[in-house]
Amino acid sequence: MSVTRRSVLGGSLAAGVAASTQGFAAEGPSRVERWGLWETALHGPAEGNPFVDVTLAAVFECDGSRVRVPGFYDGEGVYRIRFSPPEMGCWRWTSESNAPALAGQSGAFEAVAPGPGNHGPVRVSADGFHFTYADGTPYRQMGTTAYAWALQADAKCAETIETLKTAPFNKMRMVFFPSVPSVAVDPFARTGEGFQDWDATRFDPAYFRRFEDRIRRLGEIGVEADVILYHPYDPDKRGYSTMRRADDERYLRYIAARFGAYRNLWWSMANEYDLVEAKSVDDWDHLGAVLHAADPHDRLRSIHQFDVYYDVRKPWITHASVQNNFAVLDDGRAQLHRAFADKPVIFDEVGYEGNFSQPWGNLTPEELVERFWFGLVGGTYVGHGEVWHPSGNPNYSWLGQGGKLTGTSVPRLAFLRRIMEDGPVPGFEPIQAWWNYRLAGKPFETYLRYFGKETPDEWRVVLPRGSGTRHGRIPPWTESGPANTYRAEIIDTWNMTVTPVDGVFRTAPLNEQQFHAPDRPAIALPRAPYLAVRFSRVRA
Amino acid sequence: MSVTRRSVLGGSLAAGVAASTQGFAAEGPSRVERWGLWETALHGPAEGNPFVDVTLAAVFECDGSRVRVPGFYDGEGVYRIRFSPPEMGCWRWTSESNAPALAGQSGAFEAVAPGPGNHGPVRVSADGFHFTYADGTPYRQMGTTAYAWALQADAKCAETIETLKTAPFNKMRMVFFPSVPSVAVDPFARTGEGFQDWDATRFDPAYFRRFEDRIRRLGEIGVEADVILYHPYDPDKRGYSTMRRADDERYLRYIAARFGAYRNLWWSMANEYDLVEAKSVDDWDHLGAVLHAADPHDRLRSIHQFDVYYDVRKPWITHASVQNNFAVLDDGRAQLHRAFADKPVIFDEVGYEGNFSQPWGNLTPEELVERFWFGLVGGTYVGHGEVWHPSGNPNYSWLGQGGKLTGTSVPRLAFLRRIMEDGPVPGFEPIQAWWNYRLAGKPFETYLRYFGKETPDEWRVVLPRGSGTRHGRIPPWTESGPANTYRAEIIDTWNMTVTPVDGVFRTAPLNEQQFHAPDRPAIALPRAPYLAVRFSRVRA
Repeated sequence: MSVTRRSVLGGSLAAGVAASTQGFAAEGPSRVERWGLWETALHGPAEGNPFVDVTLAAVFECDGSRVRVPGFYDGEGVYRIRFSPPEMGCWRWTSESNAPALAGQSGAFEAVAPGPGNHGPVRVSADGFHFTYADGTPYRQMGTTAYAWALQADAKCAETIETLKTAPFNKMRMVFFPSVPSVAVDPFARTGEGFQDWDATRFDPAYFRRFEDRIRRLGEIGVEADVILYHPYDPDKRGYSTMRRADDERYLRYIAARFGAYRNLWWSMANEYDLVEAKSVDDWDHLGAVLHAADPHDRLRSIHQFDVYYDVRKPWITHASVQNNFAVLDDGRAQLHRAFADKPVIFDEVGYEGNFSQPWGNLTPEELVERFWFGLVGGTYVGHGEVWHPSGNPNYSWLGQGGKLTGTSVPRLAFLRRIMEDGPVPGFEPIQAWWNYRLAGKPFETYLRYFGKETPDEWRVVLPRGSGTRHGRIPPWTESGPANTYRAEIIDTWNMTVTPVDGVFRTAPLNEQQFHAPDRPAIALPRAPYLAVRFSRVRA
Repeated sequence: MSVTRRSVLGGSLAAGVAASTQGFAAEGPSRVERWGLWETALHGPAEGNPFVDVTLAAVFECDGSRVRVPGFYDGEGVYRIRFSPPEMGCWRWTSESNAPALAGQSGAFEAVAPGPGNHGPVRVSADGFHFTYADGTPYRQMGTTAYAWALQADAKCAETIETLKTAPFNKMRMVFFPSVPSVAVDPFARTGEGFQDWDATRFDPAYFRRFEDRIRRLGEIGVEADVILYHPYDPDKRGYSTMRRADDERYLRYIAARFGAYRNLWWSMANEYDLVEAKSVDDWDHLGAVLHAADPHDRLRSIHQFDVYYDVRKPWITHASVQNNFAVLDDGRAQLHRAFADKPVIFDEVGYEGNFSQPWGNLTPEELVERFWFGLVGGTYVGHGEVWHPSGNPNYSWLGQGGKLTGTSVPRLAFLRRIMEDGPVPGFEPIQAWWNYRLAGKPFETYLRYFGKETPDEWRVVLPRGSGTRHGRIPPWTESGPANTYRAEIIDTWNMTVTPVDGVFRTAPLNEQQFHAPDRPAIALPRAPYLAVRFSRVRA
């Protein structure tokens, strides 16, 4: 599978948007792909403050499934309802509103088979540690961050999209509220010229339309949009992260109603939540519950920290989004995050490749790539970012605004992405991490051992006989797996080569717990850094 | 401070017990040490099932403090109330009961200054990651495990106590319900000859008296009793961990009323909770809340896992009690547990020194001692155990029944305990773990770097300039600490030597984040394993 393969949002999405912007018919499009975006526009009150005064939702029903979806006000008397059908079939809908003009509208449409590239939304995999598209295709997370890319001028945004088309990344972390210098800065209606002159009760639909266009464009090239709802960076003191609770709730409900139907949408409640002084953990939990309840599409939800790890076991959180600079310097450190989270773990920040003066922004590409590999062997996922700029200023960089990628980690990450795509489903599992084997893969099928900066001259073949527990112990009830035959490859993760090793390795019991390869006990290695060994079962 | 120093339970404890067992006066002793054990005995109904039928509590008041303490039935019409006064002063008490004979009794006693060795109960330290006795003395956790030692014959128990008197351990993990072969096996009244012939509604006071004698003896030699309330080991299928919820609740309330006033008492809700098939996480949370509510003395509470880490952020848990074989193979792995728990972390099982056939029971002493050191540098605590036996059978070993220690880790752990006692208060803190310095101590005062199996020929002196955040980042608001002068020592953790390095190291800024020692950039090391370097500030 090619790393540059891109899924495309259902064709019916475009049709739906087109139909709904042409008029105010209660009917949306008559056909939409499963997991596509169906939308209808309704005409209702424009007076007063419709964002506050008017309630709108629709109930969608199909073959016993029933989903209640919030609508939203899009300005100038236009209200919209967006829905991404989770199943094929005939969906009937009926609107509910406190405005007579919007209540009791109804219609029907057909959700048809998804087209090429439409794999549905990404969900947590059944085993609880990886990600899978709704159609069962594994989603091999390789994220990047360009915080305010979507808030830049159209040409700059287009450049970012062009860059992503040939990059290995399939998730973009991006802020909704402006952080670094941006073109789009007003998500709310302005009330004056000052930075604080805005009305938290009135959204600016143009800002949202612009932003959802960016979400849509990412979807078209198969990139998940990990939208950061709050962050602590507020150089102009605009105060978007210090709203009153009622305004926060309205904001989350509005954004959930507008964006939730995009199947490539992920929610990141906050970046560096613990630097947002105005909000406590209780606030975040409350807002997490509000968002969860407001989003019938049940998109993935996380929260990202500066220093104090969030308790990601909480039910509103679907996966861990971790910032840590030393956690992926060793696969064991990474794996422990799974033990704590008991959910998928994404190290969304591990330091960035670049030339910034601060140590979080001046990793060498070798260092960044090493962290990705250790994360992989730990059964976790890692995120990329770069701060290459003549001035070393992260406010003007891929990390800040997107644009072009210049780092030399990128091709190595594309290589790694291919290794991931060729790997076990739903993902690389650490194999008996408890006993520090430092192996990942799928027991008795494939094994990956990564050496990082170490330059051993050989690797002795010792594999565990049992398949291990959820967190990698040998359980008391262990039964030995089969003594298989494996072919081996030496992977140079920096030079991007995969070199087959001649012959095969036949395993046999070494003791109660372990297999070895008695005829060929070790693989010679070329004493270079950043090597890995991959074992693949040879079927008789 | 000597490692073999032992604190002693308040002398008034013995007096109190003596007074209360001599008669049925409502008055307990008139004086007790602060944090000592005050007890009174009351005479009440013996008919029916007093364990179920009779409620008893007493309210203790002193200078505006008010504590409601449960009483318990001790058989033969005798009821007892135990209380450990948290403050000095005149405490007045009044009993409450649904039995007229037990209600409305009252009295008073004086809580006087604690005697030598009485430091009060161990609490979580103010910084949230260490332990401190109530009088402010640091508690440097160094635990051991002898699961069923308290259930053995008196002579064997006495042998265990004698062993502990000269051992470095200040906490004992011990089961309440029998696990391995034991002499005391009947915590409940028997109803027949079979293993399951017992009445969950009637406790056997003799079993509890015997057990609390063991708690008291540990207290006399300064060892905390970490009492394990449930466990999955049930070779005779007695079913103590599969009681009905009402019986579980009654058991926890009874044990809290009987044992909670011993100031060296810790609660471990379960050993390997996730192997107790009859109970879910919801059950454990419920029982944790029941125990918490039933214990006005608010003793430390934890739960210990086999494979699936418990969510120790939950409010009923005071500290993490972790089993993991690979987490303390590196201080960074250990430190991450603090980031997750945001509470003190004790690795109560990291594998045991011994000759058992299973890999969890055959660590070399070097391996076990290394884990303790990595745990220390990670800002955490580690527990000991040994399975040395001619048959390598963990059912008959220090781990199983106590007795004598034969492992060669013990003197090295005593040496480590001295290093801990000489260290910063409340404990060794990881210093900017985020940046992988692998240092612990107290910034600008003392630094400890441990090398484990590595045998470097030098250590280059590079220290962070900032003191770091709670979890070890350099915050954006970092201010540089002072450029101090340090003396250095090379610690051979295996051979138990501390060798001063001639001269001093004067630090100066290397860059925005780091100090170095320009006149003397590195310390030469003798290329042996298990070395550490300790830096101590030289005051002008």
